[in-house]
Amino acid sequence: MALTSEQQQEIEAARAAEARTLRPTVPALEAMLFQAVPVLDHGFVRVIDYMGDDAAIVQAARVSYGRGTRAANEDRGLIRYLMRHRHSTPFEMCEIKFHVKLPIFVARQWIRHRTANVNEYSARYSILDREFYIPAPAQLAAQSAMNRQGRGNVLEGEEAARVLDLLREDASRNYDHYVEMLNEDEGGQPLDPSRQGLARELARMNLTLNAYTQWYWKTDLHNLFHFLSLRADAHAQYEIRVYAEAMMGMAEAWVPMAAGAFKDYRLGAVTLSAQMLAILRRMLTGEAVEQAGSGLSKREWRELMETLGRGE
Amino acid sequence: MALTSEQQQEIEAARAAEARTLRPTVPALEAMLFQAVPVLDHGFVRVIDYMGDDAAIVQAARVSYGRGTRAANEDRGLIRYLMRHRHSTPFEMCEIKFHVKLPIFVARQWIRHRTANVNEYSARYSILDREFYIPAPAQLAAQSAMNRQGRGNVLEGEEAARVLDLLREDASRNYDHYVEMLNEDEGGQPLDPSRQGLARELARMNLTLNAYTQWYWKTDLHNLFHFLSLRADAHAQYEIRVYAEAMMGMAEAWVPMAAGAFKDYRLGAVTLSAQMLAILRRMLTGEAVEQAGSGLSKREWRELMETLGRGE
Amino acid sequence: MALTSEQQQEIEAARAAEARTLRPTVPALEAMLFQAVPVLDHGFVRVIDYMGDDAAIVQAARVSYGRGTRAANEDRGLIRYLMRHRHSTPFEMCEIKFHVKLPIFVARQWIRHRTANVNEYSARYSILDREFYIPAPAQLAAQSAMNRQGRGNVLEGEEAARVLDLLREDASRNYDHYVEMLNEDEGGQPLDPSRQGLARELARMNLTLNAYTQWYWKTDLHNLFHFLSLRADAHAQYEIRVYAEAMMGMAEAWVPMAAGAFKDYRLGAVTLSAQMLAILRRMLTGEAVEQAGSGLSKREWRELMETLGRGE
Amino acid sequence: MALTSEQQQEIEAARAAEARTLRPTVPALEAMLFQAVPVLDHGFVRVIDYMGDDAAIVQAARVSYGRGTRAANEDRGLIRYLMRHRHSTPFEMCEIKFHVKLPIFVARQWIRHRTANVNEYSARYSILDREFYIPAPAQLAAQSAMNRQGRGNVLEGEEAARVLDLLREDASRNYDHYVEMLNEDEGGQPLDPSRQGLARELARMNLTLNAYTQWYWKTDLHNLFHFLSLRADAHAQYEIRVYAEAMMGMAEAWVPMAAGAFKDYRLGAVTLSAQMLAILRRMLTGEAVEQAGSGLSKREWRELMETLGRGE
Repeated sequence: MALTSEQQQEIEAARAAEARTLRPTVPALEAMLFQAVPVLDHGFVRVIDYMGDDAAIVQAARVSYGRGTRAANEDRGLIRYLMRHRHSTPFEMCEIKFHVKLPIFVARQWIRHRTANVNEYSARYSILDREFYIPAPAQLAAQSAMNRQGRGNVLEGEEAARVLDLLREDASRNYDHYVEMLNEDEGGQPLDPSRQGLARELARMNLTLNAYTQWYWKTDLHNLFHFLSLRADAHAQYEIRVYAEAMMGMAEAWVPMAAGAFKDYRLGAVTLSAQMLAILRRMLTGEAVEQAGSGLSKREWRELMETLGRGE
Repeated sequence: MALTSEQQQEIEAARAAEARTLRPTVPALEAMLFQAVPVLDHGFVRVIDYMGDDAAIVQAARVSYGRGTRAANEDRGLIRYLMRHRHSTPFEMCEIKFHVKLPIFVARQWIRHRTANVNEYSARYSILDREFYIPAPAQLAAQSAMNRQGRGNVLEGEEAARVLDLLREDASRNYDHYVEMLNEDEGGQPLDPSRQGLARELARMNLTLNAYTQWYWKTDLHNLFHFLSLRADAHAQYEIRVYAEAMMGMAEAWVPMAAGAFKDYRLGAVTLSAQMLAILRRMLTGEAVEQAGSGLSKREWRELMETLGRGE
Repeated sequence: MALTSEQQQEIEAARAAEARTLRPTVPALEAMLFQAVPVLDHGFVRVIDYMGDDAAIVQAARVSYGRGTRAANEDRGLIRYLMRHRHSTPFEMCEIKFHVKLPIFVARQWIRHRTANVNEYSARYSILDREFYIPAPAQLAAQSAMNRQGRGNVLEGEEAARVLDLLREDASRNYDHYVEMLNEDEGGQPLDPSRQGLARELARMNLTLNAYTQWYWKTDLHNLFHFLSLRADAHAQYEIRVYAEAMMGMAEAWVPMAAGAFKDYRLGAVTLSAQMLAILRRMLTGEAVEQAGSGLSKREWRELMETLGRGE
Repeated sequence: MALTSEQQQEIEAARAAEARTLRPTVPALEAMLFQAVPVLDHGFVRVIDYMGDDAAIVQAARVSYGRGTRAANEDRGLIRYLMRHRHSTPFEMCEIKFHVKLPIFVARQWIRHRTANVNEYSARYSILDREFYIPAPAQLAAQSAMNRQGRGNVLEGEEAARVLDLLREDASRNYDHYVEMLNEDEGGQPLDPSRQGLARELARMNLTLNAYTQWYWKTDLHNLFHFLSLRADAHAQYEIRVYAEAMMGMAEAWVPMAAGAFKDYRLGAVTLSAQMLAILRRMLTGEAVEQAGSGLSKREWRELMETLGRGE
């Protein structure tokens, strides 16, 4: 990420403008507010605004007239109870707004989460920056042989070098041609006065999917947790997971009790099917259960053994 | 409305706890924060929290790094343009949270607006207060003869008195029986130790639809405006319209530019069908158009004439 | 439930009108179509229309040009995989529409599920029928002493009789007064020509929460399963659970593979927190773990022991 | 569009499998079912399934036990009334499912409509076809000088030729490199056995935004109309508008009454602000109103004059 000095100034100006408020305020999140946390090679995520805190979850659960909080450990117990029993509506009472810069192919995964508000930078209206995502060498993975959606070994040597060259050259050439077709310099003047310039809404189609876009993305805490449960998960694609991990850190600063409960009861939790539970009960009596007579498919059996820390 | 002194104290305690924040802040709304605005005989609406301001709409529309605002009249022009052309996503970047006390039959209309977050006081879990909505005499209207969903003349004399007596007596008696079935006094002790008391989730079914409930209701500005466009409208039932009107006032304090644009382009606006527009163009050339040859039904013709201020 | 003979005729007429279609069709659900399954004393639920079948889930997961299905056991395996790994979008490709008659207090719980389409019978516009829910004696439960949202023992003897009398008399009297205030007989004529009659939108507030309403409720299969996971659960209130159970039966006729997967991986499944999983792994090595050193609260420990079939 | 013969066969097989149903059926839509309507150079849209018809709208509005329809002109009148007064819930009772092949930059606009169900072909899991959108010469428009989101004159001569060359060559080269990096032939065998092949989820980032993707897209009629009101509009980008127009034709076959009402009251309708309405009333009295004293901005005045057919 490289913010221009103008952008950095805008952020600093926003950070300088302190005001007084009666609203719930979270100093640990205020300390981060507006500041861009770098993600990938040119991306970032930053918190722009927030509403509510741990106490607002308690307040909503109690439908109270004042803050609604009691002793900290009572509040923590209530929040953990709500998370454990999937009472989701009190978590919806907190809201957060991010500004994210991200590759278009990541944006396409992200936008599938529908319960959020989004304003994306419009390439119909404006010209995108000359920035594309090129994976770091450690992320240049081969197709997994086991999992059609996954990654295998890291590419090395000539193959890795060739891939990086292709990604760089193609993105770069396509961007150059994008600007040529637009026929517009940075000041909005024609590069070649004899040409008209292609409409922006058309020229953008020449860009590659690793071009960076940016958006404002706002959601409530329940839906943020749902996003994080899918995208901070080990099965998520690396390029979106790094955003989710940065946002998880922000959530921990913002609502430490709720974020802790989320990690225990959702992110680190496992779900066992009715059949798996029956097998587990047999195992706990000391019975030696085998896949063959378990009623589980081989795949499910392997998943269960992994869950129980009994690989092979 | 009669807040208990304990509730009033909780509100005052919340109003006393000022903090510093870097977030956008709206002094005119801060001045109202937490305070209950009375609606109907025992209801109220109050703002509990908010996120964003007029500038946040501009900021999102521009996907900017800082506040994104320019001269006030440029911002106003942009907000009005967005409203006029139904670019709704920038308005979704502002969020507001209300605490509302309202009769159950009003809550049943209100909840039909699905794009909001709600935490309602649970009568499965807790005991409702002894409060019911009884219309003021001026609101005691007869069924409209013209409109099956509307109200006609105000009832008077004996009929009005009888209606008020019935509403009062039935709500009151049913509440007394609710408490009797629960067999619980205010301190949670059995009224009659020889009885077990009916489960709360069952006893509540004896209450009338004018009993008051309460909830936290949170929505974004776009959806708030959609709610207000339907419920602050003259066709809305009076008992929900008064809530919408109180909330409209809060929106004007919060986002004066957006609220002004909403009033001009939505609340006070009219939509003309393709056929109506064709007729209007003929009228503007001086042609005298009659319903008969207009292609409009009598009902639509009447609606058009009213819109144009040419009622009979 | 007592459908009038006119209603029964309308249903039979609809069942008589067979047509030819190229759409996926499910004979087991066609056999049930339009027919009212009785629920509670006057309620029912019936399927009005449906879109898709098990094969449509497979087709969407494969984004195929034709039906997309292969061997039945391959399809079943894919559907179970999708359910297990919470790939919810293919299940959203099936849609179902119900007509439900239900007490208002049940409708108020039900409507909290926001991702559905609803058309409710309007008491602003029409007059409700003289029908209220009165619990069967076996359902007349006391408040649970353990769980503030639950039921305890069944009420008996005098207390039960008194409760039933109160519920019946109050609902009945309030309905009589509702009609009196409306001043309208069944043919829409005034009962007393000297009175105007109260507006319907006002008179309805005198009804009790056990009065029956009805609605059309339409949702996709993913959201239906979410509804069933909460409402067909043992913790749901009995009066909504019986609707969910009837609908579960309809889902099994409609999409047997998906419904089977739902029962195994959702309805009968358990979720273990990170801490619970760690304890379980210790227990499987033969270690005797006690609540004291487990890191779980007493409540969570009890929940875990119940899950593992090791209650006291 | 060029369906492969295998795809065409799958479609024909689906069209051959007729069944009997009790559900509402629309012969005019059945006649189109599954068949791909070509859009742009390689895209298409086709209806895969539907639920409901015009009568289902009426049935839901009346919450009836049978079909709920009466005389055709009564039904038409009710549907037009519902559309005119924005009673949207009865339209939500109809549902339709499309299979769409479309360029990625169009998919990115389309997905912003959140109230739909989507299953997209996954380039994380599968390999995309070698197909890109290249505009027809008549669509190769310059940037509009008036409207930053619009198109101006068509490009001609050398500039047009150069743009087409660039778009074709860049998309083609990037696709070739995508395959090279994947190192996989059509049968899934390595092109070069000495290489591992880049993971699909990474290689896809080299594709251009005019590459074609495909998805299943399902929505209810109310939200379809909302989509069409924005995307079949003259201000929509041509490349999405052609899809919307094809879908408008399908909606007219499916629900002719509702589609007619939509065209009259939404698509062909205009909204006048409070200020515009006041001006109009003055004009209708014969007064000559000028922009100067109108209270409208120049831009709004121009919009109003265009609406009224009084351009310059």
